Amino acid sequence: MNNKQLKLADLAKLAGVSTSTVSRALNDNPLIKKETRDKLKQLAKQHNFSLNTAASRLRSQKTNVVAVIINFDSGTEQSINDPFLLKVVGEINLALNKQGLELLLSNSFMAGDDWANYFINSRRADGIIVVGQGKDPANIEAAANAGVPLVVWGDPKTPSNYPIVGSDNFVGGRLATEHLLAGGAKNIVFLGDPGHAEIGERYRGYLAALNTANAIANVVSIDITSSAAYHGINQLLVAKGLCFDGIMACSDMVALGAMKALKERYISIPNDVALVGFDDIAMADVSHPSLSSIKQNTQRASVLLVEKLLAQLQGQSAKSQVVEIELINRQSSKR
Amino acid sequence: MNNKQLKLADLAKLAGVSTSTVSRALNDNPLIKKETRDKLKQLAKQHNFSLNTAASRLRSQKTNVVAVIINFDSGTEQSINDPFLLKVVGEINLALNKQGLELLLSNSFMAGDDWANYFINSRRADGIIVVGQGKDPANIEAAANAGVPLVVWGDPKTPSNYPIVGSDNFVGGRLATEHLLAGGAKNIVFLGDPGHAEIGERYRGYLAALNTANAIANVVSIDITSSAAYHGINQLLVAKGLCFDGIMACSDMVALGAMKALKERYISIPNDVALVGFDDIAMADVSHPSLSSIKQNTQRASVLLVEKLLAQLQGQSAKSQVVEIELINRQSSKR
Repeated sequence: MNNKQLKLADLAKLAGVSTSTVSRALNDNPLIKKETRDKLKQLAKQHNFSLNTAASRLRSQKTNVVAVIINFDSGTEQSINDPFLLKVVGEINLALNKQGLELLLSNSFMAGDDWANYFINSRRADGIIVVGQGKDPANIEAAANAGVPLVVWGDPKTPSNYPIVGSDNFVGGRLATEHLLAGGAKNIVFLGDPGHAEIGERYRGYLAALNTANAIANVVSIDITSSAAYHGINQLLVAKGLCFDGIMACSDMVALGAMKALKERYISIPNDVALVGFDDIAMADVSHPSLSSIKQNTQRASVLLVEKLLAQLQGQSAKSQVVEIELINRQSSKR
Repeated sequence: MNNKQLKLADLAKLAGVSTSTVSRALNDNPLIKKETRDKLKQLAKQHNFSLNTAASRLRSQKTNVVAVIINFDSGTEQSINDPFLLKVVGEINLALNKQGLELLLSNSFMAGDDWANYFINSRRADGIIVVGQGKDPANIEAAANAGVPLVVWGDPKTPSNYPIVGSDNFVGGRLATEHLLAGGAKNIVFLGDPGHAEIGERYRGYLAALNTANAIANVVSIDITSSAAYHGINQLLVAKGLCFDGIMACSDMVALGAMKALKERYISIPNDVALVGFDDIAMADVSHPSLSSIKQNTQRASVLLVEKLLAQLQGQSAKSQVVEIELINRQSSKR
């Protein structure tokens, strides 16, 4: 260890800068100018010097890594392969990289229940971004109560002592349902599980719109996967026939699963059944018919999540924030 | 540090197991039965014991983290948001999780040129999975020559001293082109940059098929993005009119960009121009018309990549391996 420190000091001497500048430069700290970083890295390479990051992290308590926990519910079939989750991971990764940080991809199965110990006290990451509130906030609350820098992608209206960034899910659910009603739909199915925090808000938005129009609610509660939606709509059609003329789906993947079931039975979209999804993933635009959707601005949200995490890492507080949503009108619903 | 070791020993004594069992259990090592792990974690929690993973990593030299480097070419507009790259990251993540490992997401911009130092010597990860060979293998070769455990997703026929897992890109390119020729296409454009290792193999497969049929090659060399394809096809149409009746696209995203340009000009797919993509991402199946594609088995490839990395971590050698591909025939090409 002493030998290592001598080498760092030697390198600093050679370059005519302080040891902390060398350490920061080799750790790619953006506080040091890129030119200086490149020069010092070149020098380190010439002298075959390898900064022992693990040792330096033990000293500095910094990893430059942020753990991203995909917060799956225990019973779900949803996986990291879900295109919306992957889109969010991609956007968060870009936002982290811009701040010189890298992303450790984890999830609620790998990380167990004690996130503070698993990631932060064990110095695997400097902070945590949780993607999705799920059904039970216990693990999130425990980590926040342990004082861990933590932000959550979820429903920002949920009362919490940690910052939540996300879309206005209530307004999204209401907009989608009002749009279906305006297109002439009278019997609109809500396709999704309202027990899930964000989906619950979308459901309450759906109820509010129905209430204003004196229409009756009909929930088909399913897991948040395309295949659960396919089977859910098939079962409903077998049991009750075509008893609905609109579907407000809790996600685009769920909407695409429902669309598959309808198309297989030659039910016309949007003439027999109009359909609106949620998320506006790339597949919504290319599907046939193209899928109307409530667009979540994941790019903006990711930048905000990283900003609020950095604020906490610098000892500042950060508040929950709503990111604007919009209805993207496509072929699957009538104008 | 002594205090920490005492505590570990104390915990082991309390539980009636060895210190290494406690350490492994708290590190979630699958060698220890899940019940035992849970029991020991519970006990650790009761006694407010936090395993210092960073310190333990310094001792054990293990991080249980694998760095996944998305190997972008320096000039590309392609980003982590590319659906195929995200699909690969998702599949590798699932394969790593099954082995008790987690994924540190990096890329060729963040990681610089010296991957051995950046990830392994600095103990940020135990091994490296490189996604994509790119145009220049220098960084991959340097890391492999430094003795770093490393596997590459790429073209497995490339001669190398590290294992490459991937599809038979030559056969994929040939199959796609033969299929277009069999459907009656005579002037087939290859849409993609043959200077890129895997795409180069697809291009050589395209040339081989054309050669057998005495057809003439026509390359539109573009960046591997949907928008580059859109502009490339638009420019070709403006400059030369509809001088082609088939497109072999180097990826599905590229094919979808080309499809957009054709549809905007009311060029019928597949009647005027038949189209085959590569990768078989989820969007290929839902697009309109649905997109024929060469399916890459990313799930199988990810399992193999992780297996070959684990073999190296255990001191064994591992060889390159080809993963089978198949043509998925959809509406964008004639049968």
